[in-house]
Amino acid sequence: MTTSDRVERVRQRLAGQTDAGALLVSDLTNIRWLTGFTGSNGWVVMDQERLVLVTDGRYGQQAQQQLAAAGVQADVLVGASGAETTAHLAGATGGYRSVAFEGAHVSFQQHASWVALFAATLVPTSGIIEAERRVKDAGEIAVIAEACRIADRALAEVAPRLGDGFTEAQVRNLLEVRMRELGAVGPSYETIVATGPVNSALPHHRPSDTLIEVGHTVIIDVGALVDGYHSDMTRSFVIGEPTALQRELYDLVSAAQAAGLAAVSAGMSVKELDGVCRGIIGAAGYGEWFTHGTGHGVGLLIHEDPFVNRAGDATLQVGDVVTVEPGVYREGFGGIRIEDLVVVTSDGCRVLTSAPKESPCPPSPPTT
Amino acid sequence: MTTSDRVERVRQRLAGQTDAGALLVSDLTNIRWLTGFTGSNGWVVMDQERLVLVTDGRYGQQAQQQLAAAGVQADVLVGASGAETTAHLAGATGGYRSVAFEGAHVSFQQHASWVALFAATLVPTSGIIEAERRVKDAGEIAVIAEACRIADRALAEVAPRLGDGFTEAQVRNLLEVRMRELGAVGPSYETIVATGPVNSALPHHRPSDTLIEVGHTVIIDVGALVDGYHSDMTRSFVIGEPTALQRELYDLVSAAQAAGLAAVSAGMSVKELDGVCRGIIGAAGYGEWFTHGTGHGVGLLIHEDPFVNRAGDATLQVGDVVTVEPGVYREGFGGIRIEDLVVVTSDGCRVLTSAPKESPCPPSPPTT
Repeated sequence: MTTSDRVERVRQRLAGQTDAGALLVSDLTNIRWLTGFTGSNGWVVMDQERLVLVTDGRYGQQAQQQLAAAGVQADVLVGASGAETTAHLAGATGGYRSVAFEGAHVSFQQHASWVALFAATLVPTSGIIEAERRVKDAGEIAVIAEACRIADRALAEVAPRLGDGFTEAQVRNLLEVRMRELGAVGPSYETIVATGPVNSALPHHRPSDTLIEVGHTVIIDVGALVDGYHSDMTRSFVIGEPTALQRELYDLVSAAQAAGLAAVSAGMSVKELDGVCRGIIGAAGYGEWFTHGTGHGVGLLIHEDPFVNRAGDATLQVGDVVTVEPGVYREGFGGIRIEDLVVVTSDGCRVLTSAPKESPCPPSPPTT
Repeated sequence: MTTSDRVERVRQRLAGQTDAGALLVSDLTNIRWLTGFTGSNGWVVMDQERLVLVTDGRYGQQAQQQLAAAGVQADVLVGASGAETTAHLAGATGGYRSVAFEGAHVSFQQHASWVALFAATLVPTSGIIEAERRVKDAGEIAVIAEACRIADRALAEVAPRLGDGFTEAQVRNLLEVRMRELGAVGPSYETIVATGPVNSALPHHRPSDTLIEVGHTVIIDVGALVDGYHSDMTRSFVIGEPTALQRELYDLVSAAQAAGLAAVSAGMSVKELDGVCRGIIGAAGYGEWFTHGTGHGVGLLIHEDPFVNRAGDATLQVGDVVTVEPGVYREGFGGIRIEDLVVVTSDGCRVLTSAPKESPCPPSPPTT
């Protein structure tokens, strides 16, 4: 995946946002997005013409290869020790009067040591790269769509077996192994399998030895990791014949989620999108059961900008990849959440996840 | 696992190390170790008498339960929003003239916002809790030993099948599923399966679709996660009859590792322990093939203090849990690493990992 236009996009934003002569990038996710470098230790110093990547001896060769593969013109400086790496960083920033740094991604201690060592004045900035990174290009969307397909397929195979006497943890294992067999590096987060009136009432329950039984609501929240990019999807099920309340709440969450998907459009505020889903659940009298936000951005991180909730001040843009995932939870009842991953387009959105969600009952096993 | 004596240990260290009236803990691993709280958002403010945990609405009930289970006397303050959580933190620190904070675990931006909001003067500190956390108590050692047993058993079952035509990724899957079936929450890090003259020459190779073939050296680095604690072990194999060089280097790494294990003792400097392993490999003429440190501490993190290498200035203490893992790597040859996890005792060390390592050849499958 070439990333060279990203360097240009950051250069333009940098010029518009700060007087500093260069930007010192610390966040490894930002560095990966910008240059393709995936090592666990590195910094980038970039100005309007030059880009320098500083890393240690473990990653020198890898950095050269990955930056070349990404089409990024750069100098790679390799330190044989921590002190030498820091000296390279001091050198790379030495030619500027002031250098912008990422205030949220540098520790107090790191900053203090840089102030003592660097000639340049350090200027805190926030979100320069994140603002570009949230808008996905066609290559990124293709990889995320592939991650979605893998999770779709794994769930399609496992869902018909939900009533077969498995525990939550066993279903998690089936899903994760299958995603790997289908080409995922691994799960894109800790797969959630939450069953019954207690566990499925917890939005982030961790799979346990609890048996999935008739009468349970079951929440499965599963995604795949492919080439650094994440997918994210939730489906909910009822084992056996749903009760009237289970059916009512499934239909309610389903309607709220469908309305959210239909509402997504570039230029819409995240607050407004959250309100679409929340309004439907609230109007039915279950507002207090919807205890989290409506969604979040997904990319190289499983949770990233833009966050879709009541407090957010972002506006959706073409290229944002976000989840739409209303849910209701109550101990004694259990929980239901339905989540799709979508990419915002010029005329609404394209839904990237496609596992069935029409009915709360697990699909029948394929007939042989 | 009760953690209440840890609070006292930190109080004593705090009194000896700073004049600040209280300590503000940000690092979530430190908070887990100190209080048992495992939420993804929280801070602790503690002085010589009181301990306050601040978190958000997702974790209020969980925090109450986990702190009670750990035997920690505390007030739990819950914020309904980010602003309210910060206000609680300002309140909890408000009664002190100065408050120590963890300089390595607070971002520049977070610190700046606290300075603007808090009445107390903020004093940077480093490693106060880490210095206590590295020394494991009996309960922690029991959990780590259990994690080791799980990885031992998974590897014992999978090793006899290494020559059966699997890829690296397939062996990784077999190991990780088996560890979960045996009670692990998951792998304690990305399991390494590295085969052949190219992949096994990379100390941190990620499992790929490369087939494990006759003639290959294979490095398997595998650990289990149990109740937040990690295990860490590496074994190396040769598929088929080893060449003279494969046998020579296996015996060399084996001798270096055995000498390292025999040398471990409380009061020894990490530099000296590193030198024991490095000396043997260097004397045989393969010093440049040993491209990493001899080991590291293991606990709630897979890599933590003390780090055992040439540059380290730590001294081993009773209760340190560290790896001893010399290795040799060269593209064209491949690699061999042998790693055990040990706990430092009053008369040397106790080895917690027990998979066979006498021979480079995979063990025969159990006869039925």
